[in-house]
Formats: sequence, structure tokens, C-alpha cells
Amino acid sequence: MKIGKQTIKLESKPCIYSTSSIVGPKEMQGPLAQYFELHIKDVFFEEKSFEKAESKMLETCINNLLVKTGVSQSDVDVIFSGDLLNQCISSGFAMRNFDIPFLGLYGACSTFCEGLLLSSILIESNAAKQVVASASSHFCSAERQFRMPLEHGNQKSPLAQSTVTGCGSALVTNRAVADNGIHITHVTPGKIIDLGVTDMSNMGAAMAPSVYSTISNHLTDTGRTIDYYDCIFTGDLGVHGSDMLHELFKREGIDISKNHKDCGVLIYDEQNQDVNSGGSGCGCIASVFSSYIFNELKAKNLKKILLIATGALMSPTSSNQGESIPGIAHAIAIENEV
Amino acid sequence: MKIGKQTIKLESKPCIYSTSSIVGPKEMQGPLAQYFELHIKDVFFEEKSFEKAESKMLETCINNLLVKTGVSQSDVDVIFSGDLLNQCISSGFAMRNFDIPFLGLYGACSTFCEGLLLSSILIESNAAKQVVASASSHFCSAERQFRMPLEHGNQKSPLAQSTVTGCGSALVTNRAVADNGIHITHVTPGKIIDLGVTDMSNMGAAMAPSVYSTISNHLTDTGRTIDYYDCIFTGDLGVHGSDMLHELFKREGIDISKNHKDCGVLIYDEQNQDVNSGGSGCGCIASVFSSYIFNELKAKNLKKILLIATGALMSPTSSNQGESIPGIAHAIAIENEV
Repeated sequence: MKIGKQTIKLESKPCIYSTSSIVGPKEMQGPLAQYFELHIKDVFFEEKSFEKAESKMLETCINNLLVKTGVSQSDVDVIFSGDLLNQCISSGFAMRNFDIPFLGLYGACSTFCEGLLLSSILIESNAAKQVVASASSHFCSAERQFRMPLEHGNQKSPLAQSTVTGCGSALVTNRAVADNGIHITHVTPGKIIDLGVTDMSNMGAAMAPSVYSTISNHLTDTGRTIDYYDCIFTGDLGVHGSDMLHELFKREGIDISKNHKDCGVLIYDEQNQDVNSGGSGCGCIASVFSSYIFNELKAKNLKKILLIATGALMSPTSSNQGESIPGIAHAIAIENEV
Repeated sequence: MKIGKQTIKLESKPCIYSTSSIVGPKEMQGPLAQYFELHIKDVFFEEKSFEKAESKMLETCINNLLVKTGVSQSDVDVIFSGDLLNQCISSGFAMRNFDIPFLGLYGACSTFCEGLLLSSILIESNAAKQVVASASSHFCSAERQFRMPLEHGNQKSPLAQSTVTGCGSALVTNRAVADNGIHITHVTPGKIIDLGVTDMSNMGAAMAPSVYSTISNHLTDTGRTIDYYDCIFTGDLGVHGSDMLHELFKREGIDISKNHKDCGVLIYDEQNQDVNSGGSGCGCIASVFSSYIFNELKAKNLKKILLIATGALMSPTSSNQGESIPGIAHAIAIENEV
């Protein structure tokens, strides 16, 4: 049921029953290493191209989710997935290996929450009992597509973020089928906000206003305050985009910094991993939620969170044509109600 | 409610209340010219690039839908849209102009039915009252991205299809809000089928098996036969892909040719328009459904149709890496129940 202007309250409270994560070698050197379930030792993952490696990671991640939960392919009603590659080939090719209906998404780094949002609505409508939401990214496939081939060895801007090599998948269920107490209670699909930022090396600045818009509207629609949530997780504003988000709320007299964390900041050790402003990519929030955050929810160290995935919807072509960067952010309220 | 293995029966029967279409000059020389609501005289549409022209067409198409139906932006709960361009920039940039939550899709030429499918589920879940489903494509932006720059003047394979310059948008409503009798009664999300076709100039062959799979499963799940529908519309198999679909059904002893039409075949005059195997692109089925087919439904010349959008989920990168072409097809059962 829609409440307020932009938020959907889910009467059936779909359950996030389980998650699966896989990351690359660099992410395994970061502070969240202990939480990732699977990892690859080499960025090629025994494939002949970075794109094939990314697709194989996504397939492996979803397979792991199904194996560990004991859910057969025929019991999954739909898989939502998306990635950053042109024509979303990481997802399209990974899905060849599943005999499951597939709905492809493009929301750049907002994809994972877009998938959770649509999964929860499929459950709410009773159209589905069990749905998988997935997203992937790979540093090497993204670099050569969006920026420069790795061989070029170019320097990056201090404000630039580093694409995460990783995937995350979540199994969203009707509570009558499987329930662990971790429920999606509200979702707020985002509107595009574009304040004219044109710097492809500063995505945090392009996306912070859309995150501000989505959080503000979510709170207004639900009648909640920032404090309602134990933590508001964004992905991925990076260090500088997070600062901008804090500043935007400060102007309203709200200090969001005390219970806001960004997955792009969490995944790497900023001081020692040479990632400039932090991580990004569809796989960043997907892998961080599917490991660290979900673990904290299960352990009840977190009981109520707002998960917000943020996308920058430009392409190299649009930037070359002088366009600014449209930002979007989708929010998912997740509460452990056991 | 899910019925059978792959089909969702929509108890609330969401309504396709209105549609809007816009096409390019070549489409206006074809046999469906009289049905298109808007058209552009020049492929640049007063913009400086084909990509910007495509995005402006999409914006114009959705604006027209809202104006003609008298629906304000604040009454539209979500827009679904997608296109063929890298990072779906036609949609992302068009949506900057709407103060409406946006969920981006990538399904290649299956996008329009993916949007209708998800729109109908949003209505079914009561998460939304009015949703817009859109898709666009542009011959010139697609040619230079997927094949060759226009200036190259290359010849095309006789089996190749020609990307339609066009957009279509549909307003899907809760029947309590607006009802014209035209209802979505069932949807069948497709699975990826990839039989190993690698020829990017023969997409019909890559997609026909997925169309066959989706239609077969839809009929099994609903207990219907081909004859239940006045017409089964696909988009876009083209001339040769349609022949292959007919052949696949013939092997089962079923003659589908008598009530099957393909939007890629309908939109151009094959003999006189130099389009080889017919039209393709996200905008093909979107514009043909939103004009000719919807008109026929309103006039009750058609009462029950199955609309199937088909996507080929490869990219130039995947094809250059020797991959075959994954096909997908989503089916929407639409019935005029007045």
C-alpha cells in the first residue's frame, strides 16, 4: 500500500531469508574479509575475459545461495539481476545457467535495492513465493568500459571511487514459506535528481542529492526520524559523497553522520588500499549487504536499518556529449522482528 | 497468483487504460503510419546527437500519455522504462524531466513487456494505482553502437533486422481508478534460452526458441490453446525468426502461423522499404502495441491477445568474445472484457 508520496508499505512483510556473497582479491584484503562467504583468488576466475569472470562470479553467487538454502531452481519464481556492463551481459549470460524466469534491471549501482524492492512487491502481490535479487560488478571490466584499459595505467582523481569486484544475492520469501524474522517493511523507489554535476570522477557528488531526496521522502512518508533506524546504509557515496550527504542534512538541522554508513567506505581500508574515495559498483552494496550487514541483522546487532542503493545513470557517451549525471536512490526498510 | 510453472494470474486484472506512440520518418512511410500518434520529421529531432534525440522522443511520448489522459505526474506511482543504449541513457535522461519514481529495466527488445509485467504486478499488490511502462529505440543510435557508424554505409545481411526509431508508453491502472475494459489477465515471465546461435545478424534465430518456450509454457500453465487468442503478437522475430517459430510449433503438430503476427514484420513494407528481415529494437513492439494493436483492442477487432516481447541479451563485447546469443521472451495476456 502506498503511503505518503513515494513509499510503499508492505503489509505481508516479505522476508530476506538468506544471502550469498562473493568478492575479489582486493576486497579480501579489506576490513570486511571475514564476512564474505566466497572469494576468487584471481580476477580472471579461470575465464578468458574479465566480463566472463564477472558473469561466472554472479552465477557462483546465486548457485551458492540456492545450495545453502536447499531451495531448488523450480521453487524460485523469478530472478532479478543487473550489472554495469553494456547490455548487462554479466547478468544475461549468468542467467543462461538457471532454469528460472529472469527479469533484467538497469539501475547502475542502485540495482541491488531495485531488485529487493521489486522482489518484495512480487511477494506482496502473491505472484511469487521465493525470489532472488542479485547484482554484480568487476573492477577490471568496469575500468575498461567506463574509463581506461588497465594497461593504460592512468592515475585517478582523488574524488574517484574504485569499482568493487563482487556480487551479492538475496533470497526474498513469502513468510509462510520461510521466515527468519528479517523483514522488508517499507520500500521507497527513487526519483531522478540531477543538479548538473558533470564530473565522472566524482559520482558521490552526483548521487548525494538523490540519496538526500529519497531519505527525506521516506522519513516524511513513514512519519519516522533518522533515529528510528539503528543505521542508514548507503551504497555507494564514498567518502566525499558521504560528506556531502551529511552537509545536506546539516542544513536541515539534522546530524545524520552518527548513524550513517556507506558500503563504499566500509569495504576498503581507505588509508592503505589506494581506493581514493572508496568503493562503488553494483556489486559493492550487494556484497556488503549480503555479508556484513545481513550478519549483523541475524545477530541482532542491528534491528532496524534503511538500505539505500544509489545509481549514477550516465554513460561514457552521455558524458562525452556534455551531459550531466542523473542520480537515483532506492530505499529499503529492513527490520528484524523476531 | 502463480499458476503452473511460470505464469502469474492477476486476480485484480489491471487495466491498460491508454497508450502513446511516437516514431521516426521511416516508420511513417510504413503500413502502420495512420496509427502512430506522434512522429518526428528528422531523426535528430532538433537535438545534437541521435542519443539525445531518442531520449527526447521518449520524454515526448510519456508527456503525451499524461496530457491526453489528464493524469498528473503526482498521480503516477512509478515509471518503468528501458532501451538499448549502453547504461540505458535514453531512459535515464528522459526521466530527469519527470518528478516520478523510476525503475530502469534492461531486457533488450523484451523491455516493453517486462515493463507491462512489472506494472501489472505493482497494481496487483496494491503498491501502486497508476504506472507507466515505456521503451524506446532509435535506428541511428543503435547502428553506431551495435554495428557500424551510419557514415560507413555498410551492407546488411539479408537476415538482419532494422532497428525501429520509435517509442511506446502505456498507462496501467488499478481498475477502481480508471477502467476501459482492456485488462492484463495473465503474465508469463520468460527464461533464457540459448541454443548456441552466434550470428548477430540473425537475431530472429537466436530469439525464436525463447518465444516458443514462453508460449508453450504459457499455454500449459493456463490450460489454453493457441486458438484461445485472436492473435499472438511477437516483437521482434522478423520474417525469418517468425518462420522459425512456425516451424518449431509445426513439429508439435500446431499451426501457429494463422494467428501469429510479428511487430517487426508489421511495421515496415518488406518489399519496398529495404529493411531485410523487418524491424527490431525496444521501440518496435512498444510503438506497434501502443498504436495499431491497442487501437484494435479498443475497437474490439481484437478481444484476446497474447503479447510477447523478445530480447537478445548479447552485446558487441560478448559477441567479439565468441559468445552465443541468449534469448528471452515475456508474455502478457490482454483481454477486452467489456
